[in-house]
Formats: sequence, structure tokens, C-alpha cells
Amino acid sequence: MWNLLTMKAEIISIGNELLNGDTVNTNAAWLGEFLTGIGFEVVRIHTISDGHNVIAKTVDTALNESDLVISTGGLGPTHDDMTKKAVADLFGVGYKRDQQVLAHVQAMFEKRNIPFSKSNYAQAEIPENGETLFNKWGTAPGIWFDLEDKHLAVLPGVPYEMKHLIKEKVAPKLREHYGEVGFLYSKYLKTAGVGESILSDEILGDLSLYLNEEVKLAFLPNLGGVTLRLMARGQDKEAAWSKLKPLHDVIYEKAAPFIFGEGKHCSISEAVGDLLREQELRIATAESCTGGLIASSITDIAGSSDYMKGGIVSYADSVKLYQLGVLSDTLESEGAVSKKVALQMAKGVAEKLDADIGISTTGVAGPGGGSEEKPVGTVWIGFYQKEKQYFAVKAFFTKDRLMNKERSKMVALEMVRRVLKGINTMPYDLKKERA
Amino acid sequence: MWNLLTMKAEIISIGNELLNGDTVNTNAAWLGEFLTGIGFEVVRIHTISDGHNVIAKTVDTALNESDLVISTGGLGPTHDDMTKKAVADLFGVGYKRDQQVLAHVQAMFEKRNIPFSKSNYAQAEIPENGETLFNKWGTAPGIWFDLEDKHLAVLPGVPYEMKHLIKEKVAPKLREHYGEVGFLYSKYLKTAGVGESILSDEILGDLSLYLNEEVKLAFLPNLGGVTLRLMARGQDKEAAWSKLKPLHDVIYEKAAPFIFGEGKHCSISEAVGDLLREQELRIATAESCTGGLIASSITDIAGSSDYMKGGIVSYADSVKLYQLGVLSDTLESEGAVSKKVALQMAKGVAEKLDADIGISTTGVAGPGGGSEEKPVGTVWIGFYQKEKQYFAVKAFFTKDRLMNKERSKMVALEMVRRVLKGINTMPYDLKKERA
Repeated sequence: MWNLLTMKAEIISIGNELLNGDTVNTNAAWLGEFLTGIGFEVVRIHTISDGHNVIAKTVDTALNESDLVISTGGLGPTHDDMTKKAVADLFGVGYKRDQQVLAHVQAMFEKRNIPFSKSNYAQAEIPENGETLFNKWGTAPGIWFDLEDKHLAVLPGVPYEMKHLIKEKVAPKLREHYGEVGFLYSKYLKTAGVGESILSDEILGDLSLYLNEEVKLAFLPNLGGVTLRLMARGQDKEAAWSKLKPLHDVIYEKAAPFIFGEGKHCSISEAVGDLLREQELRIATAESCTGGLIASSITDIAGSSDYMKGGIVSYADSVKLYQLGVLSDTLESEGAVSKKVALQMAKGVAEKLDADIGISTTGVAGPGGGSEEKPVGTVWIGFYQKEKQYFAVKAFFTKDRLMNKERSKMVALEMVRRVLKGINTMPYDLKKERA
Repeated sequence: MWNLLTMKAEIISIGNELLNGDTVNTNAAWLGEFLTGIGFEVVRIHTISDGHNVIAKTVDTALNESDLVISTGGLGPTHDDMTKKAVADLFGVGYKRDQQVLAHVQAMFEKRNIPFSKSNYAQAEIPENGETLFNKWGTAPGIWFDLEDKHLAVLPGVPYEMKHLIKEKVAPKLREHYGEVGFLYSKYLKTAGVGESILSDEILGDLSLYLNEEVKLAFLPNLGGVTLRLMARGQDKEAAWSKLKPLHDVIYEKAAPFIFGEGKHCSISEAVGDLLREQELRIATAESCTGGLIASSITDIAGSSDYMKGGIVSYADSVKLYQLGVLSDTLESEGAVSKKVALQMAKGVAEKLDADIGISTTGVAGPGGGSEEKPVGTVWIGFYQKEKQYFAVKAFFTKDRLMNKERSKMVALEMVRRVLKGINTMPYDLKKERA
């Protein structure tokens, strides 16, 4: 049994697209987080080309330096995918055919009605000293190597295939070989509708009493808010948590209204969805400048049909008039980007789709279309809840179209969350303008 | 004057946050693209920790292997920023103080009303054999080293500081030392609705006649298709293009119907938008399982209000019935995920929103909700064009909800593109099932 606290790991990212900047290496960051989380020290990430010799040499070097090496990429069926051959040659072994993999690849092709071409047989060839990590999400299996006291995992580069293989095949292998020792406790608290400096300087204030070599806090800002990462190390989960808890508690004491959820991948649409389900409310969206992004974000969550009635994307004015019931007088006198139109859209969609809550956006997404009075980045967001609340807020974002869509979505969903939680302030202290 | 065509570069990314996955290494991708674009071959990216020895050793190795080495990170004033000391020790030199840098750093502190602490003097210390790359955007200068026939640039890790220094300080140095020679011509041809192996084996076939040391082809698969990257090196743009052109032409000859656009960032929604504008057609979307994603994708494109009327997200059956005009008999007898409902949704939205083309999706996005007859991943996509075409296709995707949304979107948009281009086959050879 090894002491995992001293175990070193290296990551080898293979692919020319990573070297010439075509693809940002998100796989390595994900693997780095995974390995750090289970107690490995990631000492190096090698990003190299699809070349036979460089792969073989880099795997060799990494195995000399570290206990665990994970490679991603270079496992496809085309001529520029070299990893399997490089590793087999490094170990001086031939191949065995894995019939389960072959049957799986053939079945995938059949199901999609694609003829099975010759190069696909290669997908089922495994180096003799390796063990198949069966990949039901794609055609290239991963391969695991037990090498005396070291280990090598060779994985495909497609992110979701790689992640599934890590979670379902590699993680159990690591537990088997290294046991359950050492723990890095990371907790992510996600906030929305508040900027980093306000959160840090005014809301949280000086937290240095709670921080030390073993307990860390990081501010990770993003387009809609700030993620707080709290981290502590300990011998086991309980020890790490007891170190982390004082910091965790003081943050909740000071910033609770701004925290919409826990966990790195928790999203605002998930938080809103949970509240809607709890309160047995149904929502509908009326989107102009966000063009369907809010609806898409709500429906990213499994089970959202419990509370999502649907939405109307009203890009053309005629859709605002005839589908959402916006008054033509209002459109004419106030313009499409206005408080009154946002209000009528929110109420209109809730009534039309028989929902309890309607949320709307209308704005100048850009890059064109701005005026002095309504510059690019001006967005009105409307909120309607039958017999409860009916208001709109006006926000100014940037000149960038996609960022405007994303930030409008975040503010709209955070508005819904705050209303449902009974919080009176709006995101970024935007003013509620009532109907 | 060097021949840039044979010049190799390496990137060293320094920082624990890159190894433990807190930060995705976007700097390396940006540098890779920059260096590739001016003709260097990026042969390796090293991601390493803030440690003195590992930095010194990695810089040394990289300088042995390559002509140009660029490091980023580890230049701040805190104790864990080690790069400058590691490099000075590697070269066996002491430091000189740069008065311009010192004055700049002091002025920055004054402006922000922050006391100037001792550790900040270190920012103005430059290794004796280095040359300051003055950084007016931050406190840490970059450093340039002329090392016989090789070069090293040591840059801060803050992305915008690094990028400014590259553009305004490093690029002129590279021109000075390497001249304006060599050009790497990269062309991206984006395909949709065809898998990598079919494209490679059946459609393109053997292209080895067109490929050599100077002319390369890569297949970059993604969720909706495959991007082909064609690259050639030459003395100048024309020379590189003349080498690339035979490959480019043969690919178009064989695969033209599958290519929806050129350029790394060209999207299928942009390609569809261009066709709609050319043909003066307006589109509307009726989305169930994609939940607004197709509308959002169409409206990501600036100017999409020219051809996008709007959309209806019909998550609840009531929205299908009352907003889209789906017949309750059909819903009852066939179920929401069926050919007839997809057809009625597409036609319904086109008529309701007064559009020329209606496109619809209805499927089991997952992870729950599947049945034996309609497993998770079953999606019907409908197409309606007044007096022209009216059909649906049935696709099977995966068990992953977000991937199902993304792939349904890609197939739907590629269907529209193919119809507008007069191409008869559907993406992935899916069968048109007429009304």
C-alpha cells in the first residue's frame, strides 16, 4: 500500500491541434483537477505532437519520473493517430485483438447505418501487455498498463469519452492500486449577481484569520458572478473538512444571499429549477436579444419538463405582436428595447403558455443596431408572476454580442432565483422598475 | 538571416494552478497559434510548477532542442514566483536594476494608493545578460535573451500582459532576428453531417500523393462533423498557397457537398444564415428536446434578424397543441417523439410565425424518459418549406443530454443547409421520411 500523498503523476496531451493553438487543452486541466483531488501531485503536463518517436520517448521519460502517467489523444483510426503503436513499440510488444471492442465498434457503425471500413479494425487491436478499458461512448478503447510499481493509462482525446473512462474505469483501478489515503477537500460556492471586488472587499471583508498553509480561498470570477473555491488538506475527508468548516461557515454567514449553489458544475439554471420544483411553479420565457439562450439553459437540466412550459423567441416584431400580445402602440412609441415591451413580453408569455412566471429579454445585442439613447449592450429584462411581482430591470453590458447574451441570461435567471428566495435586491443592485 | 521554415519553438507554462486544474492553459493555445502563424513549428509545450530547479532544467532542455523558447508565469513579486531567479542561475549571472521599470512600478503603486513594499524592488531586477521588455500594463517586465543562435523570452502569465508584450515587444524582435521569411498557410475546411472514417476512407480516399513534409492534412472531429486543416509552408504567402492548392482542389473535388464553410471559427449557423439571406428566406424554429438551442445558435450570428423570425420552445405538450397546432389525436396515437409530431411542429411554426422555413426537434434528450421503442437519444427532426419540401428524419444519438441537444442542433442546421444548397442526401445519410 502506497502513501498517496507522495505519489507523482504526469499528463501527456497528444495532438498537433494542441500545439498550434487550434484546440485549448481543457483535458489536461480536467485531469489535473481529478488527480489533485484524489491526492496525486501533478508534476508536469507534456503537450506533444502525434509523432511516433516523441510519444514513445515522452511516455518513457514520464514513467521514469512519476508513479502514474495518463496520456490522451492519438487513438483514432486515421493515419495521424500514433499513440498505440508508439506505446507498443516502446514496450516491444505486439497486438491482440479484443473481440468485445470489435463487436462494439461494428455495432456502432451498424446502428448509424455507416459502412464498416478497414481502418476501423485497428480500433480493436490492443498492445499485448495492456488491458482494455472498454469505451462504450466511442470507438477507441482506453488501455491500462501495470508496469511493476508504475501505471500508464492511454486514453482517447475526445473529452467526454476521456472523462467517462477516467470515472468508470481508471478511478477504480487507482483505488485498487493505491488505496484510499490522503484527501484534498475542495468546496465550490457559486455566487451570482455580484462583482469580485464588492464580494471580496465589502461583503466578505478580511478573512485572513481563517486562512493558512492548509486552508485556502480563491476567487474565480466568470461572466455571471464569482465562484469561491475553499480548499483544505487532511489525512481523510473528516480531518480536511474540520479544517475547512470555520472558513465555510463564516462565508455563509456573510454572503449567504449571493450563493446560489455548491459544487463546481452547479449552474444557476439548476438552482432556479430546484426552487421552481419546490414551489410548484412553472416558467415560460420570452426572448428577443437572448434568442433562446435562456430556454436552452433551463432545458439543459434533466427533468426540467417538470417546471418548464416553454418559450417564445420573438426576434421579429410581428412575433412580439401576434404571439406575445405586445401592443403595437407601445412598440411604436417606446421601441422594442424598452421597459414597457419587456413587461408586456413577460406577462404575455406567462399568459399565453399558461405559466406562473414569465421572464423576458429585449436589448441591443450588437455589434450593430445601437443608438445614442440605446447603445449596444442596453438590455431590459422583465419579470412577471401572477398576482405577485411585475417589474423590469435595465442593464448595460458590453459591445460583444455573445457576452451580452450570456450576461443577460445570467441576470435574468438570478432575478428569478432572488424573487423565489424572497431576496429583495436585484443582481448587481439593478433597480426594480415596476409596471 | 535564418530560414524560418526549419525553426522550432517551445512554450513553457509555469504555475501550479495549471497543474492542479484551477486554470485552463489558454496562454499556451494563444502562443501556439501566434508562433505557428509566423512560421515556427511548436514542438512541445511544457507545463511545470513554480519550482526553481524544474524551471531551470526545463529552460535548459528546451533551449537545447529548439531555436526559440517562450516562458510565461512565475514573475510576480511573491515568494512562489521563481522564474527570474531560475533563469539567472541557469546562466550563472547576477542582476542589474532597471530604473525605468522601478519608476513605473512605483508610479503604479502611488496611483492605486498602495504602499510600496520591499518585495516590489525585485520587479526591477533584470538578469545581467537579459534585456527588459517594458510592460506598461503591469508590474512585471518581460525579459529577452539573445543566446548565440537561440532566443528566450520570459513573460508574465497574466494573459493580456503576455499578449501585449508578444505583439509589441517580442514580435518585432523576432522579425529583427529571423527576418520576414517563411509563411505557414493554414486553411480550415469545415464539414458537417459526415463521420471521420467515412470522410477519410470513402470520400477523400488516399491523398498521399498530395501530402509531404511541407503539405499536411489533419482531421479534427467534433460533435457535428469534422474540420479539415490543410497546412503548407513556403517562402511567402503565394509560395505556400501554390503548394497547398493541389490538396485544396482535390478535397473540394471529392467532398464539396460536405463542406459548409472555410475558416477556423466559421459555424454552421453562419453558413445557414448566409444562404437564407441570399435566397431571401425567413426561418422559424419549433424546439422540444433542443429547448431553444437552435434558435440561440441562429441568433448568435450578428445580423440574424434579417432572416430569423423567431421560435417556439414547446416543452409542455400544451404548447405543442395550442401554439404549434399539433393535433391532439396525433399526440395521443403517436406520442410526442414521433415523425408526425415533428412534421406538424415544423409546419406549425412556419405558418404561425409567417416564415418560409420551419425546423423542428422532438426527442428523448435523457438521461431519463426512454422506453424500449424510443430509447434515450431518439430524436425526430422536421423540415418544412412552403410548397417545396416537407419531411422528417430520425436520428439516434447518445445517452448524454447536452450532447443530444448539440448533435440534434447540428443535424437540424445541416439539414437546412443541404436543402438550400440543393443537396439531396441528409446528414449521416439519414433517410428523408416524407409527410
